[in-house]
Amino acid sequence: MADKKQLRLAAFMRPTTIHTGAWRYPGAWPDANFNFAHIKQLAQTLERGKFDAFFMADHMAVLNMPTKALKRSHTATSFEPFTLLSALSQATERLGLAATASTTFDTPYHIARRFASLDHISGGRAAWNVVTTSNPDAALNFGMDEHMEHGQRYRRAREFYDVVTGLWDSWADDAFIRDVENGIYFDPDKMHVLDHKGEFLSVRGPLNIARPVQGWPVIVQAGASESGRQLAAETAEAVFTSQASLAIGQAFYKDVKGRAEKLGRSRDHMKILPAAFVVVGDTMEEAQRKRDKLDSLVHPDSGLASLSIALGHDASGFDLDGPLPEIPETNASKSGRERTIEMARSENLTVRQLAERVGGRTGLSFIGTPQTIADGMQEWLETEGSDGFTIQFPFLPMGLEDFVNRVVPELQRRGIFRHEYEGKTLRENLDLPRPGNRFFEK
Amino acid sequence: MADKKQLRLAAFMRPTTIHTGAWRYPGAWPDANFNFAHIKQLAQTLERGKFDAFFMADHMAVLNMPTKALKRSHTATSFEPFTLLSALSQATERLGLAATASTTFDTPYHIARRFASLDHISGGRAAWNVVTTSNPDAALNFGMDEHMEHGQRYRRAREFYDVVTGLWDSWADDAFIRDVENGIYFDPDKMHVLDHKGEFLSVRGPLNIARPVQGWPVIVQAGASESGRQLAAETAEAVFTSQASLAIGQAFYKDVKGRAEKLGRSRDHMKILPAAFVVVGDTMEEAQRKRDKLDSLVHPDSGLASLSIALGHDASGFDLDGPLPEIPETNASKSGRERTIEMARSENLTVRQLAERVGGRTGLSFIGTPQTIADGMQEWLETEGSDGFTIQFPFLPMGLEDFVNRVVPELQRRGIFRHEYEGKTLRENLDLPRPGNRFFEK
Repeated sequence: MADKKQLRLAAFMRPTTIHTGAWRYPGAWPDANFNFAHIKQLAQTLERGKFDAFFMADHMAVLNMPTKALKRSHTATSFEPFTLLSALSQATERLGLAATASTTFDTPYHIARRFASLDHISGGRAAWNVVTTSNPDAALNFGMDEHMEHGQRYRRAREFYDVVTGLWDSWADDAFIRDVENGIYFDPDKMHVLDHKGEFLSVRGPLNIARPVQGWPVIVQAGASESGRQLAAETAEAVFTSQASLAIGQAFYKDVKGRAEKLGRSRDHMKILPAAFVVVGDTMEEAQRKRDKLDSLVHPDSGLASLSIALGHDASGFDLDGPLPEIPETNASKSGRERTIEMARSENLTVRQLAERVGGRTGLSFIGTPQTIADGMQEWLETEGSDGFTIQFPFLPMGLEDFVNRVVPELQRRGIFRHEYEGKTLRENLDLPRPGNRFFEK
Repeated sequence: MADKKQLRLAAFMRPTTIHTGAWRYPGAWPDANFNFAHIKQLAQTLERGKFDAFFMADHMAVLNMPTKALKRSHTATSFEPFTLLSALSQATERLGLAATASTTFDTPYHIARRFASLDHISGGRAAWNVVTTSNPDAALNFGMDEHMEHGQRYRRAREFYDVVTGLWDSWADDAFIRDVENGIYFDPDKMHVLDHKGEFLSVRGPLNIARPVQGWPVIVQAGASESGRQLAAETAEAVFTSQASLAIGQAFYKDVKGRAEKLGRSRDHMKILPAAFVVVGDTMEEAQRKRDKLDSLVHPDSGLASLSIALGHDASGFDLDGPLPEIPETNASKSGRERTIEMARSENLTVRQLAERVGGRTGLSFIGTPQTIADGMQEWLETEGSDGFTIQFPFLPMGLEDFVNRVVPELQRRGIFRHEYEGKTLRENLDLPRPGNRFFEK
């Protein structure tokens, strides 16, 4: 069993479910995304299911769609990542706690400090999902009229990463000696002053908190573009990604791990965890019925708003019960547009069905029985499609409970998923090395 | 009993003790400032003692003194306020959670969001200590070569406060209706877009989190200068302050409450809570012996560094066992210099004793028996010196336990301090009104 490649599982929990219809599903908690007692219970269920990590995306704006769609969104109110994860650290013991933090809208001293603090408070369970934030609505909340250009954002992200990891290394692991008799609290030879001055950032240091338990919190990245993949290859220890099919997943896996190896990194020190939407049923038919029911709860206003974004074309005037009309080329994302048109044509969907699908959740899904879901996951794992998944639940709490109660035991039975946590820290559980301190260790 | 003016008590907990010798005191926890299990226990003891709030100062730099003094400081490593308070919210039920956050080194969207999140997670126990951060060492950690000028800092703070409170009012209290049947999560007429554009800040909004439980977290301010007092009068609901004597405290109390009344505010809606250092003994002599012992644990290197800062003059070459030499006038703070010289002369202190005192803790202290300490506090309370205190403990955990086990019962016996919390939120316990929403309520 121990010689089988092990599956890693993160849970996508901000929002608690990505599906816009989820809060309306019969029996679901309509306020799951903003009820601390509920989220605590979900985190404890994840820990019972031996998940590696609770993963929080982030979104620093509300106004990202027209009001008539926005008012139907269950994610307009959410907890801030650090306050939520720190509180959850007190309700769990082994679950990793991954927060998204933006290199465009924050400063490295704050970021380094918060992740270090979360890592200490949680006993070594923090992870940082490094994002550059592509959302122009967020820019307006941070005093920027125009969003920073893509290449510049990525150069800043790389420098930001260097500064944050440098600040985490401000103190040797054994700097704080607390010699009561001689009154020496720390050894000054074990303190490093960073004195960073770069293209975007100027930070003196040292950080005002001891080196994190894990050395550095685990670095997560979600690179898709050329610069994103390169940043992931240089820095990421876990990669959150969207992959539409196994073949595409395998190509991505090969590309990013290959880039990392070229840089002298071990391919095992980067876990690739594509998002996977999972709906569990007693039969294939029941699972599909649940998904259809869920999709039907996406209001056309929400669906059309999402469809317009995906197509780069205003879909609000389309006949809901007719086929998708011809869509002219635009400047918007070509791949999203083509994928959406292809989906409509190949499955022969009406505009309403397409809008429900796009407004709900597209991309990699496992809809089936515990058996077929485990089959699919095992195939990805064993054919280098991924090292595991970031699970997206359809509705709460049932979707998560189904996964933990029914899919996890099947994965365990196959010897590809843990029965108990291997260690105390997230690094230990993900089998990632603890980074040496660049200033005090070879 | 209920008609007696009630004392309000905050606990100064970051650092866990302000006294530089504290971590060396016999029986004290040398790592109290950076041991989460210890801090949790202290917070629970504060709650047992019915304290209003756990108060965290903040300091966003390490290098504020020469290495030979710095290495003796137990505050070089500390938890970040939001991660710590959010974790503590899970270990306590009524204790207020006050964090310092800087209007100079952060952005209003982040600040509004974090305090709102802490307020929701704690069930309405958050408070924001609004500071402009006067520390030039911190500026170097945030990409600023020179620190922002005083007047400019205060203008920015005022604008920052308007933006943060405006963001808290982004949503009416009843905006989130979660109408499952019709698929309407919130009422768009109950969402306000701030669209702020001012001298320093440009923030669109709305905030991506529901209005805080308390409407707004309690606003704390620490104004001493003219602009500081004015900002406090305009905005503060609790004032953290340093007052050397009752007469000075009474003058400050009268001045700041008077300013607030001129602005149309009720004087009762602002609680003035000067810092008070408290050492409890069975007798006056025992209390004084504890304080002397504590002061003797301030290493001369630490003491002389603090003394140099207080005098605005390098004291490192002074004869430790001689009297304080004549100190020439400098550009440094005149009041601090004069207060220090006056202390040396009036108490006939050697340089060593003066350095120990200055390096330890100066200012308002209550050193005595539970009886004399309660006498002193009651006098301040009843003669308009203050509405309570922000207690600074000499060493942990004993200093805090002495206060809770011995001073609190004496205050309760006199009918000037609660036996039980009055409410669930910090506002309810401090008897402060819940602010109306400026956009949705008259």
